[in-house]
Amino acid sequence: MKEEDMEFWRDVSYKIIEEVEKSISPLVGEEKAGEILKMGADGTPTKFIDEEAEKKVIEVLEKAGKPVTLISEEIGELKIGEGPAEVIFIVDPLDGTVNAIKKIPAYSISIAIVLPPNSTIKNIEMGFVKNIATGDLYEAFKGKGSYINGKSLIPSRQEEITRSLIGTYIRGIRMEKMDKICNTVKRIRLLGSVAIELSYVADGTYDAFLDIRGNLRIIDIAAAKLIIEEAGGIITDEKGELLNNPLNVKERTSIIAACNLNIHKNIINMTGV
Amino acid sequence: MKEEDMEFWRDVSYKIIEEVEKSISPLVGEEKAGEILKMGADGTPTKFIDEEAEKKVIEVLEKAGKPVTLISEEIGELKIGEGPAEVIFIVDPLDGTVNAIKKIPAYSISIAIVLPPNSTIKNIEMGFVKNIATGDLYEAFKGKGSYINGKSLIPSRQEEITRSLIGTYIRGIRMEKMDKICNTVKRIRLLGSVAIELSYVADGTYDAFLDIRGNLRIIDIAAAKLIIEEAGGIITDEKGELLNNPLNVKERTSIIAACNLNIHKNIINMTGV
Repeated sequence: MKEEDMEFWRDVSYKIIEEVEKSISPLVGEEKAGEILKMGADGTPTKFIDEEAEKKVIEVLEKAGKPVTLISEEIGELKIGEGPAEVIFIVDPLDGTVNAIKKIPAYSISIAIVLPPNSTIKNIEMGFVKNIATGDLYEAFKGKGSYINGKSLIPSRQEEITRSLIGTYIRGIRMEKMDKICNTVKRIRLLGSVAIELSYVADGTYDAFLDIRGNLRIIDIAAAKLIIEEAGGIITDEKGELLNNPLNVKERTSIIAACNLNIHKNIINMTGV
Repeated sequence: MKEEDMEFWRDVSYKIIEEVEKSISPLVGEEKAGEILKMGADGTPTKFIDEEAEKKVIEVLEKAGKPVTLISEEIGELKIGEGPAEVIFIVDPLDGTVNAIKKIPAYSISIAIVLPPNSTIKNIEMGFVKNIATGDLYEAFKGKGSYINGKSLIPSRQEEITRSLIGTYIRGIRMEKMDKICNTVKRIRLLGSVAIELSYVADGTYDAFLDIRGNLRIIDIAAAKLIIEEAGGIITDEKGELLNNPLNVKERTSIIAACNLNIHKNIINMTGV
């Protein structure tokens, strides 16, 4: 992507983040935020707060004045503007919806940008994750590194799996797959916002993150994947293969992300029951 | 406890909270915060940020001008002032130490007050949990209710275990005990601060919280126990027995806390493998 295009779409992304934050702030912790309006394009229920956030995404992209394709959780795929799309926006307007409704401080907006027609997750050009609860902005630019609030990101230097802090998700899987992990690592967290928790691998808060249910939406992880890779971390599926999934609302995967190859290998070995 | 005494010790507690917040704020997210200084009285390592927090607790109690006994994680038991202690302070100066060091937004101070010689957890007169990351103050007064930022607390009205959001801790236990839970409830969280997560049961953020490792420090849960009970929630050990543990730094327990008897019974039934 050309420098000037990159700056243009980055600024559009900042504007989306700003508008979504403004629209959801008054809804955080409110019962109304959780009202179910309909089924979203991804097959999960759309809540009032999700709908409000997505509306703002569409509004900003309409005003940007260039043709784009938007792929987003509730609406599916939407062409905006005349002529062929210059870029594809892959947006999760609100990752961690339940946290926002419950006021648990882990909810975010995730934006990834890819150039058509290369629309698989391996071609992401830019990624943004804004942790709305804390105000931290994570961003990554292909080949140019990743940043938190403008400062370079560095993953943890942890080499010992027995001393590591890992994030995960555990509902709805056979626990035997997690048994060894849970009895080997030092600490576990489960915050319920994958975009934030993958960003935590990029910035060294977590040593690793895994979700082996095969159920993570590609949309939700698209931005954070680039953020981890540009920080120097590792992110693969549960077999250790690099991700190459198509970018659509139905696509799902498992994830093992880690600060380095050693921790990554340890986790792969333990989950391969 | 007399009304005027209650007000006096409540104000001392507010002062402790204020001073601890001031002293740890500059350390949150800093590497120095995690330096290990020594082994604490509870048998776990004392980190720099824990020591700073506890120092402030002692300072404020020394200035309060009345004799007290302090029971706290790092120092064990400390008599402050001349003559017999008027009250016993049970303090966890920083619950969620690792979260504070890593800047994961879930760390708190917990203060419980009991009248000597009735020093078991069932005799707590007042409890305070300040979620330092979010600014929320939970407090409870025996027989007089519990509050968040001055407003009455109400637990969730959830009756369906399959629709519930529960908090837990899962490191270091046989996963088969958690298997049924994890495949029955709707959502799971694991934030790594038991004082906050029990307060989340009191205010309806969580429908339940369980930690069945038998490893929770009584010190850490003393305040939150009263906050849950005064809100109308349930808190017992893993067999469903009311807690009656002595208040000392070595004492540990399992916990099953829930918004109501129905959810509580469902959890007891599922964990009794």
